[in-house]
Amino acid sequence: MMEPAPVFADGVDHERLTAQLRFILETDKLKRVLRRNLLVDGSRRENDAEHSWQLTLMARLFAEYAPDGTDIDRVTEMLVLHDIVEIDAGDTFLYDPQHAASQSQREHAAAERLYAILPDDQAKHAHELWSEFESRTTPEARFAKAIDRLAPMLANWHTDGGTWVQFGVTKKQVRDKVAIIAEGSAALGSYAAALIDDAERRGYLTGE
Amino acid sequence: MMEPAPVFADGVDHERLTAQLRFILETDKLKRVLRRNLLVDGSRRENDAEHSWQLTLMARLFAEYAPDGTDIDRVTEMLVLHDIVEIDAGDTFLYDPQHAASQSQREHAAAERLYAILPDDQAKHAHELWSEFESRTTPEARFAKAIDRLAPMLANWHTDGGTWVQFGVTKKQVRDKVAIIAEGSAALGSYAAALIDDAERRGYLTGE
Repeated sequence: MMEPAPVFADGVDHERLTAQLRFILETDKLKRVLRRNLLVDGSRRENDAEHSWQLTLMARLFAEYAPDGTDIDRVTEMLVLHDIVEIDAGDTFLYDPQHAASQSQREHAAAERLYAILPDDQAKHAHELWSEFESRTTPEARFAKAIDRLAPMLANWHTDGGTWVQFGVTKKQVRDKVAIIAEGSAALGSYAAALIDDAERRGYLTGE
Repeated sequence: MMEPAPVFADGVDHERLTAQLRFILETDKLKRVLRRNLLVDGSRRENDAEHSWQLTLMARLFAEYAPDGTDIDRVTEMLVLHDIVEIDAGDTFLYDPQHAASQSQREHAAAERLYAILPDDQAKHAHELWSEFESRTTPEARFAKAIDRLAPMLANWHTDGGTWVQFGVTKKQVRDKVAIIAEGSAALGSYAAALIDDAERRGYLTGE
């Protein structure tokens, strides 16, 4: 692991700041974790760090489509942190059942290692937020997950079907993702359903 | 400009959602705006979108180093939006005085065009947040700017001097940036000063 510069700052708890900096250096690796989907201009695959930024932007702009009382600041913080486990666990393609089967175990081990780099109080907070996101037990987690599922649909639609075409994804498989979006936001779920219908008309999705 | 899919979602204001989606598609270009500094592993230059993500992470983790009462959620939202002007204006290298002279004009024109893609209320909000960030008139803006200045220092220190060495940056030039960090956070300013002293000892910065 990369070590922060061996310097001391006046009036700052050195051990605590060092742990925080170590986490920032370690999570810089998120910029090198590639996802399957392309940028919307089709030029290259997207990485997890820029994906995470885009989700926070979408969460702020689409706040009005979250159920009343949803705390968008918690949603934002969740999205900033949500993909960090992929530094160890790798990106799991949504439509790869074999890889998905081991995903939970790999991601939990990753969360154990990565969040523990932080000072204890921040490690606990980050780990809890990530667990909440994964289990979708709150409106915030369901809305964050809806945004996370919608983003690659936009990328696929704008790149002539993108990973749907590349991996022969079926309409039924995508409809399961639409259901997850609808659980987080009725409006975004309705938009995702319309988008998938259109993608089918264009031949981006296979039969079933 | 890329147009969103021509589909209608039930119960959603189509014109409004289309404007929001148009903004998301347009700002996807932030992933292709390259900065001067490298990733901390030195493997390649960083882009603005992944940089923006990292700043939001740092803002959350370093919240305790902001002045009492600083609203970290506003800081986070500011950082999500702050670099979008660079889609039109390009990244301005901090130590390039010629380019910097025209920066303000280029960025204001960019803000005019880009934020106006959003529905009016969101355009106004985003533009105001960006202006606040640039003018550093609030604790939130000063803290956001401090984080924005600190991040490339970390990258430079971890890449054997990075852009400091590449462009022959002087200690005095970097000290001006340290002052901006200290205005946003005494603790982070103190850390940045110690980091710069260490960088000088290592020969990463030239004489004056």
